[in-house]
Amino acid sequence: MPVPNYQTARLVVGRIFCSLLLLQAAALPAAQAHTTQTEPALAPAVAEPAALVYPFLDTANSRWFYFSSAARPFGMVSLFPDTALNGEWGSGYRYDESTVKGFNHIHEWQLAGLSLMPVSDHRPLSAQQVDYASAFSHDNEIVRPGYHQLHLKRYGIGVELTATSRVGFSRYQYQPDQPQQLLLQLGGVQGPSRLGHAEVWQIDQHQLAGFVTNQGTERRVKPVKVYFHLAFSTPVQQLDAWRANQQFANVNGISGDDAGLRVSFNSSDHQVSVKAGFSYVSADNAKLNLQSELAGWDFAKTSADAYAQWNQALARVHITGGSLTQQRRFYTDLWHALQGRRVVSDVNGQYMDLSGQNPKVRQLPLNAQGQPRFAMHNSDSFWGAQWTIATLWPLVYPQAATALGESLIQYGRDFGLIPRGPSGGQDTLVMPGVPMTPFLVSLAQKGLLQTPASELLPMLQKNHSAAGLMAKAGYEHYSASGGGFSYYHQRGYVPYPLPETESNYGSHRRGAGQTLEYAYQDFALAQLATKAGDQAVATKFLQRSQNWRNLYDTKSGFIRPKQVNGNWRTPFDPLEYEAGFIESNAAQAIWFVPHDIDGLAEVMGGKTTLVNRLEQAFQQAAKQDFTAGTAHAQEGHPEYRRTPINYGNQPSIQTAFIFAAAGAPEKTQYWSRRISDTVYSHLTPQRGYNGDEDQGLMGSLAVLLKLGLFQLSGGLEADPVYQLGSPLFDEACLQLSAERRFCIKTLNNGADRPYISQIKLNGQLLNRPHLLHSEIMDGGVLELQMSAEPAQQQPSQ
Amino acid sequence: MPVPNYQTARLVVGRIFCSLLLLQAAALPAAQAHTTQTEPALAPAVAEPAALVYPFLDTANSRWFYFSSAARPFGMVSLFPDTALNGEWGSGYRYDESTVKGFNHIHEWQLAGLSLMPVSDHRPLSAQQVDYASAFSHDNEIVRPGYHQLHLKRYGIGVELTATSRVGFSRYQYQPDQPQQLLLQLGGVQGPSRLGHAEVWQIDQHQLAGFVTNQGTERRVKPVKVYFHLAFSTPVQQLDAWRANQQFANVNGISGDDAGLRVSFNSSDHQVSVKAGFSYVSADNAKLNLQSELAGWDFAKTSADAYAQWNQALARVHITGGSLTQQRRFYTDLWHALQGRRVVSDVNGQYMDLSGQNPKVRQLPLNAQGQPRFAMHNSDSFWGAQWTIATLWPLVYPQAATALGESLIQYGRDFGLIPRGPSGGQDTLVMPGVPMTPFLVSLAQKGLLQTPASELLPMLQKNHSAAGLMAKAGYEHYSASGGGFSYYHQRGYVPYPLPETESNYGSHRRGAGQTLEYAYQDFALAQLATKAGDQAVATKFLQRSQNWRNLYDTKSGFIRPKQVNGNWRTPFDPLEYEAGFIESNAAQAIWFVPHDIDGLAEVMGGKTTLVNRLEQAFQQAAKQDFTAGTAHAQEGHPEYRRTPINYGNQPSIQTAFIFAAAGAPEKTQYWSRRISDTVYSHLTPQRGYNGDEDQGLMGSLAVLLKLGLFQLSGGLEADPVYQLGSPLFDEACLQLSAERRFCIKTLNNGADRPYISQIKLNGQLLNRPHLLHSEIMDGGVLELQMSAEPAQQQPSQ
Repeated sequence: MPVPNYQTARLVVGRIFCSLLLLQAAALPAAQAHTTQTEPALAPAVAEPAALVYPFLDTANSRWFYFSSAARPFGMVSLFPDTALNGEWGSGYRYDESTVKGFNHIHEWQLAGLSLMPVSDHRPLSAQQVDYASAFSHDNEIVRPGYHQLHLKRYGIGVELTATSRVGFSRYQYQPDQPQQLLLQLGGVQGPSRLGHAEVWQIDQHQLAGFVTNQGTERRVKPVKVYFHLAFSTPVQQLDAWRANQQFANVNGISGDDAGLRVSFNSSDHQVSVKAGFSYVSADNAKLNLQSELAGWDFAKTSADAYAQWNQALARVHITGGSLTQQRRFYTDLWHALQGRRVVSDVNGQYMDLSGQNPKVRQLPLNAQGQPRFAMHNSDSFWGAQWTIATLWPLVYPQAATALGESLIQYGRDFGLIPRGPSGGQDTLVMPGVPMTPFLVSLAQKGLLQTPASELLPMLQKNHSAAGLMAKAGYEHYSASGGGFSYYHQRGYVPYPLPETESNYGSHRRGAGQTLEYAYQDFALAQLATKAGDQAVATKFLQRSQNWRNLYDTKSGFIRPKQVNGNWRTPFDPLEYEAGFIESNAAQAIWFVPHDIDGLAEVMGGKTTLVNRLEQAFQQAAKQDFTAGTAHAQEGHPEYRRTPINYGNQPSIQTAFIFAAAGAPEKTQYWSRRISDTVYSHLTPQRGYNGDEDQGLMGSLAVLLKLGLFQLSGGLEADPVYQLGSPLFDEACLQLSAERRFCIKTLNNGADRPYISQIKLNGQLLNRPHLLHSEIMDGGVLELQMSAEPAQQQPSQ
Repeated sequence: MPVPNYQTARLVVGRIFCSLLLLQAAALPAAQAHTTQTEPALAPAVAEPAALVYPFLDTANSRWFYFSSAARPFGMVSLFPDTALNGEWGSGYRYDESTVKGFNHIHEWQLAGLSLMPVSDHRPLSAQQVDYASAFSHDNEIVRPGYHQLHLKRYGIGVELTATSRVGFSRYQYQPDQPQQLLLQLGGVQGPSRLGHAEVWQIDQHQLAGFVTNQGTERRVKPVKVYFHLAFSTPVQQLDAWRANQQFANVNGISGDDAGLRVSFNSSDHQVSVKAGFSYVSADNAKLNLQSELAGWDFAKTSADAYAQWNQALARVHITGGSLTQQRRFYTDLWHALQGRRVVSDVNGQYMDLSGQNPKVRQLPLNAQGQPRFAMHNSDSFWGAQWTIATLWPLVYPQAATALGESLIQYGRDFGLIPRGPSGGQDTLVMPGVPMTPFLVSLAQKGLLQTPASELLPMLQKNHSAAGLMAKAGYEHYSASGGGFSYYHQRGYVPYPLPETESNYGSHRRGAGQTLEYAYQDFALAQLATKAGDQAVATKFLQRSQNWRNLYDTKSGFIRPKQVNGNWRTPFDPLEYEAGFIESNAAQAIWFVPHDIDGLAEVMGGKTTLVNRLEQAFQQAAKQDFTAGTAHAQEGHPEYRRTPINYGNQPSIQTAFIFAAAGAPEKTQYWSRRISDTVYSHLTPQRGYNGDEDQGLMGSLAVLLKLGLFQLSGGLEADPVYQLGSPLFDEACLQLSAERRFCIKTLNNGADRPYISQIKLNGQLLNRPHLLHSEIMDGGVLELQMSAEPAQQQPSQ
């Protein structure tokens, strides 16, 4: 077997790891595939954080969009080998699967794109079109941010992948004297989508163009075309096609359902490179994207650029100290915080709006240089964003935060409603409520939106009304009932269950959970109203934000599902999963009042009671490591789901910081550190986020916990507040801008010393366990004295 | 069971048949369902020809678009009950099927639209969505041009249908105290199309809008959306939907694959009317079409208008004499000549172009009044059009001829090539060659094109080149090999078979047949070049039109398939079906040199030999009534297909007129009359065209044979020539314009007197068996003396 041209790869890899002790091991293809067995207790300072990323983390539990290799931050293209294809959840790069079933270029929320598969044999096309998967081994695999290399055993083909934002770049090394073939899979199931009608047409001997169509799904109901433009390094010798069970020799294109194309080459060096530009607007735009981003054929440079871009992004947080595993896990978390929610607009600022009766090509506003002022993004839900990306991104990726925020607002202008989860130019209506509100309000408070508060306010207000998304359940595209808004509006709660006479369309109809979310989201809206100077609106929504109280049952001490007739739903089991609460139970949901901990303490009988109950919950949850199993697929399992805290899903990930808000910051320090060390400490393909990472949410959470920064309210205050946790590293510096840094230093830190005994901000003693956004943004140093015991006297709130 | 409101129907029907002897019988619903048993030998003069149409003709053999009831001439909408749904061929209104499976509004070449199905019971939607077909009886059925009434036995629902051009108008009479329900079938197979993604959304209590998508087919490869706008006479009570196996109560729309909607009403008079406007451009245009064409709710007036429009169109030919059956069959033929090739542009002149990578909405040129100068048409192939619609339409429907011709040219501007068979804004590439060329040249010679010859010539020329459709076989969308043009160009014939190394994409790769068609089409192009004054082009294509000679085998006396190596293909069996000839055999194909009968006679050894051979062929063919079975499905049957003449398909329908061109017009008179009386004389659902009527082609042929007018060359001469046959009726007057008529009178006519013994044109003896286009268009009277014996001295050619 001839070795693919690894020269370039070696050079790049060599440069990357030059400052690391693990240089020798990592430079070998096999190294990245295994977690380190023994390691020094302390790692050196991080020079190239991208080298520390462990892309295999949790990949035994991958869902379609989870993994990443040949991709840029927020890049439209995320190109990698798919080892499983069926469905949204169990697909993509699944570590324990043994065969590669194609290399899809688009792995996004509800979207797949073109899958390429190099093959090489003399079987007829009728055999190749159905039986093409190749065994591979992780031993022959190199993966780093922006690059992937593996070997297809069946065909003896070496594959290398890299990408720019909108262009996938593949290089195949075939065996001498063997056919050089490439399959374009245009149909079948690709992760979340069944691909429907597709077309490919030949432009010339070096170029093909076309599109695949993602059929509608329950979530993303309208079909989405993904256009591509392919450029080959060597002339096409012949195109053969199939459609269903028919094969066609010597064609110049193909179209239809369940179609595909085989491209044959005859390159003298047995190497074929393919550049694949993508667009959601047109094949012309796909070509434009390709030409703009990747005009040449320098694979090594493209791969190095990709790596450098990741390195730059990750270097926005510079850590010192901790073990090598902790460092690797930290940068893997940070890297995951930048996965998903990808760009869908083209270099010229065109994007597709599918919300109306016909597809509409729209144009983003341009700046003085003729560049789009921001890019449009796809996005899974913002459910839990208030405790994850809403905090992390504004600190270290403010431009990404702005782009995602403005993107949502732009969709709002197009659609008439700011969407819950835009995918393919339409709202997937993923999850309940309006979690976009706290996300956007937090950005507004942090000065990260171009849109003024006065313009944003009425747009958000609409979503908090009968005409908006509060009236719709999850994925409720064809009615406006499951959101239970009319009840929420008139009676102050969403009943559970809703009457059977109403529409049954949509999911996540869990009235008690919806009520809690709406109340919090109303609180967020009130903050924006205040900012916009509209006191009447502020007062109205502040009042509505107290609706959580309508479901507090004094007798049981829980938030309880209430029926339409006003009676509590019986029987009541606080640990019963999904009985009125979304992917959660009453024991977890009682804590979902992040905007009114004082009020919660009051109804519970005081802060001491609250703290004691929460402490009990944590002690109980600790028995199963604070999660419901170690993967999202296990969350509903009867053995795991009866937990009062679950750090494997969003509904209760704020709980550790409620202690601090109730006057017990030492417990926040203790439990948040326990969670860092337990839930987000692994570094294997088998275990990572113990649930659903969810497009950067849990990655962000892990980063925040390890930095010791959190925003219980989601950063809604005029000068948003950060609670302090228990930082993991000796030092973590946030690069706020080119000139400004904010560093969190810990002294005497250690796994057994989670407590903060002293806080200094820029050398001055600080007598509170929180910071203001403005304090961080001014830059400076936070110095924390760590201790094995809680401080005698806790700083006051 | 309550009788539907038949009052209106009775009134209209009564008015219609007032001048007919069969008044009483026809006014009863049952009458139209059966052919007349006994009848007077001679029918009275025709006052209302639409009343004579027998819509059930040949419907036991219907294909999807064949039948028609609630439709206007060339109307976008053709609404009728579908008794079979599967596939292009065995679907639509099939007489012998016992259940109605929906009422689709679009029955066109490669296209289906929205199917409505009224139902009425208390079963759950999950049962209704799959089991909804209703038995019906022809006894309770009234069908006339523009109107259909039937009774759905299963539900006790009376259904009436009528239409404007772009709007279907349905009226349902439900049983009292029974549910008033209407299913919208958005998925599944509807004739030629599997319906894919669909959407419907509610506008208000009286309106819905949406679209269905025709998935791509082998022929029409790109999906086509058909938009609709529905208006209900009574408010919608509730919408329930399904998608695959899921049902959703109380929705405001639905989308997806395999979806559908149930609309429930509660009308106090148990009657629900539905107007369904259609468009291929947008739901907005569907609404505009509806509002423009059918603003009100007067069903009776709409139905009467539809009838009047058909009556006007059919009255363009006014016949006297013949039996009632002959008259009914004649107007049924004429009515069929106006079926299919329907309008696809909207009232505002917008239409859809799907030929590019993305759908494009285009605008037709408007006249001074702001109206589109012509409408865009769908169309099945023009294969055989030269002997059918190319002759008939210019005489009596010149505006339709102009519209179809200009429509083709407009597509040519859009697509870059004048299409063979446009459907849904794309070329289906149906059948081989460029049969559009003779069709368009004939229109140009008759002064019926707005586009000047000089502009048309290069467009057609392109199609006669390697860059055009002569390079493509039937449906050859993804290569340009099966047309064999390179061989035709270099060697003067298309080989059969083509080399296996070339593309195998596409159908009808029958080199000898292709060669014959190309030669004739080249002749047509030469005529246009002469008209345009381009003598060089004329000479070139005139030379190429002699290419048929390259396949004449002196030894066998047949046009024979020749292989790539220049040798005849062996063994050779002149009666072998499809062995080098398209839906034909060598015995039939020898006659396909309509532009050079003299040349054919010459190679055969003289005109006498030719006439004798042709006479033998007819005598042989007469044994199985000049067809290959009595339906298209039988054509390839081993028992029928070995015929030397087949008047059930296009390839040899000119043969009877070759006698005249070879100096034996009496044989033309004899055999063409035999064919009129044998092939096109039936009036039952079981037998009609003995093959494939093909969107007006065979209907036109039958009309022409019965008028005694034919154009062997397809009307390509500068002043196009009409050969005379043997007219069936005492008089047939063509309404050429408001003021001008041309009448063909026969004296002493009868089934046993097929021969013409004397010809007078406007009272002057005519010593030739043909007329010129100018002579007809001047108006006047052709008077033919008929005889039982051939004239002693035949008029010279």
